[in-house]
Amino acid sequence: MSLTQEKIEKIDKLCEFFIIIDKEKEIFRQTYLADASRKENDAEHAWHMAIMVMLLKDYANEPIDELRTIEMLLVHDLVEIYAGDTYAYDEEGKKSQRKRELESADNLFGILPEDERKMIRGLWDEFEKYETPESKFAHTMDNLQPVLLNAATGGKGWLEKKPKISQIMERNKKTAEGSKDLWEYFGKKYIRPNITPNKIQEDVEFEF
Amino acid sequence: MSLTQEKIEKIDKLCEFFIIIDKEKEIFRQTYLADASRKENDAEHAWHMAIMVMLLKDYANEPIDELRTIEMLLVHDLVEIYAGDTYAYDEEGKKSQRKRELESADNLFGILPEDERKMIRGLWDEFEKYETPESKFAHTMDNLQPVLLNAATGGKGWLEKKPKISQIMERNKKTAEGSKDLWEYFGKKYIRPNITPNKIQEDVEFEF
Repeated sequence: MSLTQEKIEKIDKLCEFFIIIDKEKEIFRQTYLADASRKENDAEHAWHMAIMVMLLKDYANEPIDELRTIEMLLVHDLVEIYAGDTYAYDEEGKKSQRKRELESADNLFGILPEDERKMIRGLWDEFEKYETPESKFAHTMDNLQPVLLNAATGGKGWLEKKPKISQIMERNKKTAEGSKDLWEYFGKKYIRPNITPNKIQEDVEFEF
Repeated sequence: MSLTQEKIEKIDKLCEFFIIIDKEKEIFRQTYLADASRKENDAEHAWHMAIMVMLLKDYANEPIDELRTIEMLLVHDLVEIYAGDTYAYDEEGKKSQRKRELESADNLFGILPEDERKMIRGLWDEFEKYETPESKFAHTMDNLQPVLLNAATGGKGWLEKKPKISQIMERNKKTAEGSKDLWEYFGKKYIRPNITPNKIQEDVEFEF
């Protein structure tokens, strides 16, 4: 018999948290899977990016702590469990996004024991602040992974939404801060060939 | 212009790999989500366990390298992309499982550049060998995460399959090697209450 009452109560809280965050698997994004069969959910997106970090970390502009970058990506969308996903080009939704996500973070992370709450909150805050090399690279992954999937489908999402290249450049104005190499690669390989009359709209000059 | 031809060719291979492993999101397991709405896929399962490692690592019997444990869990089911999921109690399927998974590993990891291939293969081999503290704890997560989800649904999977407690104990004969505390906790809290005439069948004596 190795479990103390204190340990049991702590594991109780952690397991309650694990069950609640299961909802992340039912928050669907705007991105289609590579075979275009359906849209991707937040849990799948986080898993995919974590593996991308394992294999792309050497392309970061500055050396990054791989573990911290992966941890940040694993938890960065958890706030959407109560706040919902906000599409990158939904200007109305984005106005209330920060407030909704802060409330969600308080509610969701509040379930955790104190040390764990601080740890997870610290990761989310660091991601949101966009200052450390790890946060910058995590955002690079967050911006480029949907580009990869979208390109793999033949640009299904772009065909449907016909975003302007100016919107894509605005969204990605800091993507190169995490990795100049990857922004250049993805821009040339996946974005530029999809700038066509029925997909990404060329409303301004651009350069990769 | 920072990208050399060598870099481009390497990123080409990595991106090809990222697109192929997207299939992991369509490999469904036997476990239902916590709200029992549908079954869980391998990508979601890996994401969920990676967060569990972040919060449960201190309950490992021996100190573990968190990054290596998470990396192992993120990639350990990739072989199922070509080999398919084998249900824990499918005795026929399990006979051919190892051969199918080895072939799948050769095909799938063979896409990668050499260093990356060795890295991912090393993680999968370490998981399969079940020897290091990290591998043992990863297996503990792999065995207990579905128990947590199953219990959260009120035991839907157990109601449907009516596994014997002897099968569950056999599958979990090494779960405590990763964490005695967690095996005891999960056994008492989630398994024992589900040993009922219509769920887990009590065919042998057991102890948690």
